[in-house]
Formats: sequence, structure tokens, C-alpha cells
Amino acid sequence: MQRVWLGDRTAAVRGRIAHRLRTGGIRGHLLGLLLKLKLPRSGVLVVMAGWRLPEIDDRGGRIEVGDCGFFPGVRLECWRDAVIRIGSGSYLNRNTEIVAAASVEIGRDCKIGRDVLIMDTDQHALPGRALDVRPVVIEDRVWIGARAVILKGVRIGHDSVVGAGSIVTRSVPPRTVVAGQPARVIRSLEAPS
Amino acid sequence: MQRVWLGDRTAAVRGRIAHRLRTGGIRGHLLGLLLKLKLPRSGVLVVMAGWRLPEIDDRGGRIEVGDCGFFPGVRLECWRDAVIRIGSGSYLNRNTEIVAAASVEIGRDCKIGRDVLIMDTDQHALPGRALDVRPVVIEDRVWIGARAVILKGVRIGHDSVVGAGSIVTRSVPPRTVVAGQPARVIRSLEAPS
Amino acid sequence: MQRVWLGDRTAAVRGRIAHRLRTGGIRGHLLGLLLKLKLPRSGVLVVMAGWRLPEIDDRGGRIEVGDCGFFPGVRLECWRDAVIRIGSGSYLNRNTEIVAAASVEIGRDCKIGRDVLIMDTDQHALPGRALDVRPVVIEDRVWIGARAVILKGVRIGHDSVVGAGSIVTRSVPPRTVVAGQPARVIRSLEAPS
Repeated sequence: MQRVWLGDRTAAVRGRIAHRLRTGGIRGHLLGLLLKLKLPRSGVLVVMAGWRLPEIDDRGGRIEVGDCGFFPGVRLECWRDAVIRIGSGSYLNRNTEIVAAASVEIGRDCKIGRDVLIMDTDQHALPGRALDVRPVVIEDRVWIGARAVILKGVRIGHDSVVGAGSIVTRSVPPRTVVAGQPARVIRSLEAPS
Repeated sequence: MQRVWLGDRTAAVRGRIAHRLRTGGIRGHLLGLLLKLKLPRSGVLVVMAGWRLPEIDDRGGRIEVGDCGFFPGVRLECWRDAVIRIGSGSYLNRNTEIVAAASVEIGRDCKIGRDVLIMDTDQHALPGRALDVRPVVIEDRVWIGARAVILKGVRIGHDSVVGAGSIVTRSVPPRTVVAGQPARVIRSLEAPS
Repeated sequence: MQRVWLGDRTAAVRGRIAHRLRTGGIRGHLLGLLLKLKLPRSGVLVVMAGWRLPEIDDRGGRIEVGDCGFFPGVRLECWRDAVIRIGSGSYLNRNTEIVAAASVEIGRDCKIGRDVLIMDTDQHALPGRALDVRPVVIEDRVWIGARAVILKGVRIGHDSVVGAGSIVTRSVPPRTVVAGQPARVIRSLEAPS
């Protein structure tokens, strides 16, 4: 996953912004400006389909968001010294929730479905153990279906797809469809020729 | 599934209305009148257990609702030229969400549990494919348990039951109990003798 | 599960309260006082991380809560003559919902994760059967992961752990980790030596 997405105004990004300017509506862009006030670093933001701003619960971490779309009910919870990064062209659908105790990174052009929960920690330790915190990485162009849960230490390879309602406990290779509880490989996707 | 439910004022329907007049309370009926303003065609509506109106996100489709009960947090999203139909005697519990890109039909006397999600499309296509949109049909007297997800192309036969938290990816015969992720047949229900 | 938790001001409880006084903040305690007005019997309450009060839908039952923490979106639904009891030191994370038609008891020092749903009834009967209502008991120090659903008749033994997104349909022995849909035993936890 590249890290230079912020401030990257290539033709592709401009194309996405233009698309969003057409589709997001004036209201979405005004809400996006309000949302920018709550985020230290962000690109062009659009808040789709409703007046409610996403909830930003920043407890002393770092949230960096590119040119992104947010739907109502999204919530980002970033713990002390943790990082949440979301690449340009990605959007988070309704009620998506991200909890970062250390690091949750989402690449470019990702589609995060409604009610998805992404956490890099279980928030509690099993008795006699230390709190388990392991970064989550979602690479470029990943599509996560509605209601899926992505748990600590998972890396989802680029261009992969997570089925609706899946509980993802292990990493997923690139160009792979997974589904189930726990999520298992359903099939591979061919590389574009 | 019969299509003549709207405006159908048989004794059975009047009985259901009478029951709802007793149980829904004045507030539920007043909210139902407000909700009717947002729907082009609807029967007697009752909004149960709270002041919040269900959210109707009609993007140029057709939403037709019979004599129905809605709980707080229900959301109907109807895309351009799509159809959502809900038969008389059915109710949608808390936070149920329906997304229709083409057609979602719910029969009469259905019980849709809380947090149920029904979608006739994944909303995105796999790379190199067209967007997959396939109508969902839920026949009469179906009971869908809490947190279940009903996906594109599924038809649930009349009098069937979907267990809590199930992810339903394939059609279900009549009088059948299914559960799991993906949902599988657990057992058949006998016809009433 | 002991029943004497209410009004029990042992050193351990005082320690928990002190911890909560430090971590919950003034706002959380003020909201806790407002929440106490809605509950007939309760200890020290803290409403964490937000202004919204939990929703108490008491239809003529009995809700008894010890020294507990509640997060935004929690909802307790207690039917006529039903009981909900939550022991001291326990907390309910965001959007946890409890539905008691007869009895839901949660012990001390339990951690109930976000979006958990606990119901002692399916709320409807299969055709030709009576409504199935069976009490739920969650013993002390149980940890229930995010998005899990706990269904009628389940007893979860003390010190057990339920994985995220699990659908728990059968009882769980003490000191046991379960996960899946339906939840199955993953492993046992050793007793502390």
C-alpha cells in the first residue's frame, strides 16, 4: 500500500473528485467540509445521504483520510498513539465502525459495506495474557461486504472480496473471495488481462 | 404471493387492524399517518415503540405497503424504477433495512426480526462482470429471525423460518427452517392438518 | 451466580468505583445519575463516551443493575413480570440489546461487547407450538465478543469467552472459549494457579 496518497492530485484522483462532485451533491460536500474540521489530515470529503456527520473519537492518535466518501453512522475510534489511514477513492458505507488500538490502514478505492466492523484488538485480554493488538491492513481495491467483521492481525490482499456477514480472523491473499464464519477461501479472481 | 393485498379490506385484515388499534396505541397510529405522507401507496400503518419515523429513501422507485407495522430504525432504500412491496399484516422490527435495486417483495403476515438486512444486489460488481441484481421474494407468513441477512435472488417459501443471524444466499422451500452461514435446511415444518 | 451484589460495598467494588470515577469522567457520572432515575434499583452507574442515555423499555418487569458501565445505544427491553439483572463491575458496550420475556441475568465483572444481542425468547412461536421462553444466565466474568447473539435457554459458565459474531444456541461450560454459528467449543481456559 502506497503512503503518498494524500495531496496526490493525479488525473485519476481528479476524475474521482469530479465524479463525486456530480454524485455527492452540494449537501454532501458541505458536510464534508464540516467533517474536515474534525480530522487533522484529509483530502476532499463527501458525506453521503444524510445530515449526520460521522463520529470521530480520536483519543490521541492520528487519523489520515484521503479523498473519501462517508455515509451516515460511520464511526472512527482511534486510541492514543494509534493510526487510522484511509486511501483516496475509498468509501465507508452506513454504520461502518473502525477501532484502532495500534493501526488500521485501508488502501485506495476500497468499498467498505454497511455495518462493517474493523478492529485491530479484541479490547480485552484472555486471563493471564497481555492485550492482543495486531495491525489490520486492507489493501487497494478491496471490497468488504455488508455486516462483515475484520479482526486483529488480518491483512486483506488487494482486489479481494469479503462476503456479507463474514467473520475474518485470518489474512486473505490478493484477488481472493472469502466468506463464512470464520471466513474461508471461496475462489480466486483472475488478474485482468 | 398474491398482489391484491392493497385495499383488500376482508374480515381478516379488519381483524388485524383492530388488533393493531388495540396494541399500537394512539402514538403509533399518529406516527403511522405521518409515515403515510412519505409513501405513495399504503394501507393502515402503525409505527411501534418510539417517536422516530422509519427512513424512506426513494430514489425514483415504487414503494407499496399494505396494513403494516414498523418499528424504530427501519429503513427502506428503493432505487430508480425499483419496487418494494410489503403485504398486509406484516411487520418490520427495529433497524430492519431493505435495499431494492430491482425488486424486494414481502408477502402477507410476515414477521421480520430486528436488524434484518434484505438486499437484491451486492451494490457492486466483481471485476469484469456486470452488477448482479436479482429480485428477492419473501412469501406469506415467513418469519425471519433477528440479524439475518437475505441476499440477491433469494426466494423464501411461504411459512418458512430463518434462524437468527443466518446469511441466506440460496432460496428456501416452503415450510422449512433454515439457519447458519450460509443458511442450510434444519428441518421441515408440517402442514397444519 | 450470587444475588447479593446490590448494595455490596466491599473493597473490590469500591476499587471498581474508584477506577470508574477516574476513567468515566464527570459527564459519564452525571449521565449515570440521569439513568438511575429510569431504573428502580441500581448501584453506581456510569454512561461512557456519549450524551445519549441507554434506552430502558420496561413493560412492567424488574430491572436491577449493580455498579455498572453503559455505552451509548444500549437498550434494555423487559417484558411484563420479567427480570433483567446485571451484576456490579459489568459493562455493556455500544448498542448492546437485552430482551427479557422471563429472565436475563448477567453476573459480576462481565464484559459485553458492542452490538451484542441477548434474548430469552424468539418472540414468536413456530406454528402449532407455544411461545418458547427460557431464561438466559451469563455467569461471572464472562466476556462476550462484539456482534455475538445469545439465544433463549443459554447459560454461559463463569470465566468463559464468546468469540465475535458468534450465534450461541446452547449452554457453554465454565472457562471455555466458543465461537462460530452456531457457537462451538474452541478450547478450555486453565484455572488460575
